[in-house]
Amino acid sequence: MIDLGEGVITLLDQRLLPAEERRLSLTSTEEVVRAIASLAIRGAPAIGVAGAMGVALAARRALDAGDDPAEAARAAAAALRVARPTAVNLGWAVDAQLARARDVAAHGPQRLVATLEDAARSLQGAEVRRCEQIGAHGRALIGRGARILTHCNTGALATGGYGTALGVIRAAHEADPTVRAVVDETRPLLQGARLTTWELGRLGIAYTLICDSMAASLMADGRVSDVIVGADRIAANGDVANKIGTYGLAVLAREHDVPFYVAAPTSTVDLSTPSGRDIAIEERSAEEVRGVQLEGRPAAPSDAPVANPAFDATPARLISAIITERGIHRPPFERTLVAALEAAES
Amino acid sequence: MIDLGEGVITLLDQRLLPAEERRLSLTSTEEVVRAIASLAIRGAPAIGVAGAMGVALAARRALDAGDDPAEAARAAAAALRVARPTAVNLGWAVDAQLARARDVAAHGPQRLVATLEDAARSLQGAEVRRCEQIGAHGRALIGRGARILTHCNTGALATGGYGTALGVIRAAHEADPTVRAVVDETRPLLQGARLTTWELGRLGIAYTLICDSMAASLMADGRVSDVIVGADRIAANGDVANKIGTYGLAVLAREHDVPFYVAAPTSTVDLSTPSGRDIAIEERSAEEVRGVQLEGRPAAPSDAPVANPAFDATPARLISAIITERGIHRPPFERTLVAALEAAES
Repeated sequence: MIDLGEGVITLLDQRLLPAEERRLSLTSTEEVVRAIASLAIRGAPAIGVAGAMGVALAARRALDAGDDPAEAARAAAAALRVARPTAVNLGWAVDAQLARARDVAAHGPQRLVATLEDAARSLQGAEVRRCEQIGAHGRALIGRGARILTHCNTGALATGGYGTALGVIRAAHEADPTVRAVVDETRPLLQGARLTTWELGRLGIAYTLICDSMAASLMADGRVSDVIVGADRIAANGDVANKIGTYGLAVLAREHDVPFYVAAPTSTVDLSTPSGRDIAIEERSAEEVRGVQLEGRPAAPSDAPVANPAFDATPARLISAIITERGIHRPPFERTLVAALEAAES
Repeated sequence: MIDLGEGVITLLDQRLLPAEERRLSLTSTEEVVRAIASLAIRGAPAIGVAGAMGVALAARRALDAGDDPAEAARAAAAALRVARPTAVNLGWAVDAQLARARDVAAHGPQRLVATLEDAARSLQGAEVRRCEQIGAHGRALIGRGARILTHCNTGALATGGYGTALGVIRAAHEADPTVRAVVDETRPLLQGARLTTWELGRLGIAYTLICDSMAASLMADGRVSDVIVGADRIAANGDVANKIGTYGLAVLAREHDVPFYVAAPTSTVDLSTPSGRDIAIEERSAEEVRGVQLEGRPAAPSDAPVANPAFDATPARLISAIITERGIHRPPFERTLVAALEAAES
């Protein structure tokens, strides 16, 4: 859903889905920053890939213009790193590109640009493989005829390919076609209603779309067997920052004895963040909350005071297991996540 | 916000708020049924008033046309009773009108119509007085500088005047102007975003509008001191049917040691319903869920399968107190609600 060409990044504009499938062509750092900040591309792994591609794009454009690609890569990295504050993958992917640029700087600008482009594409391929591994591990947790509730969008759109939480649903459905999904619409930006339904429809997986406030009622009625969500950042103690609404779902799942799983690549784990309390939560525009419309009419006074935290922190004690490309990690996460990261680096 | 004239009911069309304040004039049973079913008027006490007025309207129109007003009242009652299935007030108000019609039938059609009209107006006046009493009782529960979260709309629009849960917020704010509200937008129909914000703005009470999925996060941050909601029906054991999302809020309030209050007139208590499991939950149109728009674009595929229960049942064990016009009722509600009803009838 995102591709790096020579001096251009093309991607599906997720803001227009499901009504319209339009691809954007980005040719400058400013355009990439705007695409990330405006959520034309979103999802922690996907914006990591976009960030890596953005650094490579800036270096390529500088080379073509006769400028210094290393300098352009540094400037692009600085701008891209702050396009979204909460996801750890973005800073991580951008910094990895700068490290590569330093490593090959002595071999000349051509080599530098080619290295950055190769690394960005290879990151994308690695993300897809990691998602497939997450799916393969995660489906072992899912029983026959499961009704899996998910929040936000964690599919191919969010990850560069296959998906994390949606990847587990996909893998479980491949093994058992009676597996179904329950999709939280995910206010304010409705990524569940707009994107997850679109992906599930293309995959032929049956689903039921609900408003976020209906999840508790469906759980009480026995209509949800599992909850699986993604993660924007996982702290060292296993606390998880993810789309606003995730924490409430975790409390509700515990109340109803429904397992609550988090599916994310190990790149989402940030050992330098001790706990959920240390994760900066992005506060987004009031318009996202009050700008929603029913039958073309605005749903709130245009000057309504609003709170709009984009993420929340779910404490580790509410999480049954974290699924990464390395396997299924159970509490205590302080120990099992560190072991997973050490295995990932080996 | 609703008035009965001679052969006409006028009311503020709540579907157009907050963008437009337009009054509807209803002159037939069909129009009243449609106004109730389409939520031009909503809220359990308000639709009780509308139902009583609808019966009187039908009798008045029959009298003017030379038809039998008693027969017209019976036909109207049958149609009005089923306009919404969950609120108890509608059937209760309509049946009370039929009983009055029988009582005065011997005194001729003129007297019958006048009796029904007087009774409908007097029900409305009684609803407003009951709300004021609920507010006066409820504010004793609210501490200084409270941050009161509420769901849906329970204000003057929903009750014929003053409000139930919003009436408590209003009374608490009169006593302490630092009291503020946190308003759940209340998907799918956004009564919080559209109506509660509009009422709070007119009353000069400061508020913060949030998406329903943000309540848990605000509670975890200590930004909610109390939750107060209304009720569409209260079972004999104290279980409460109310707008979808109420049950989840009650679970979250318990998790965060936030008191959870229900404010409703005793007319909402239905001793013939033993528990929440016995309350019919209205399933409304899929369009309400998938028809929401962001920036004019539809937010879900037009054929997305949807669940849309309009209400949920909150078990009595999660409710700190029920506030009626008779006072504050604490668990065990089996006992305290019956006592309140007996006092109300005495």
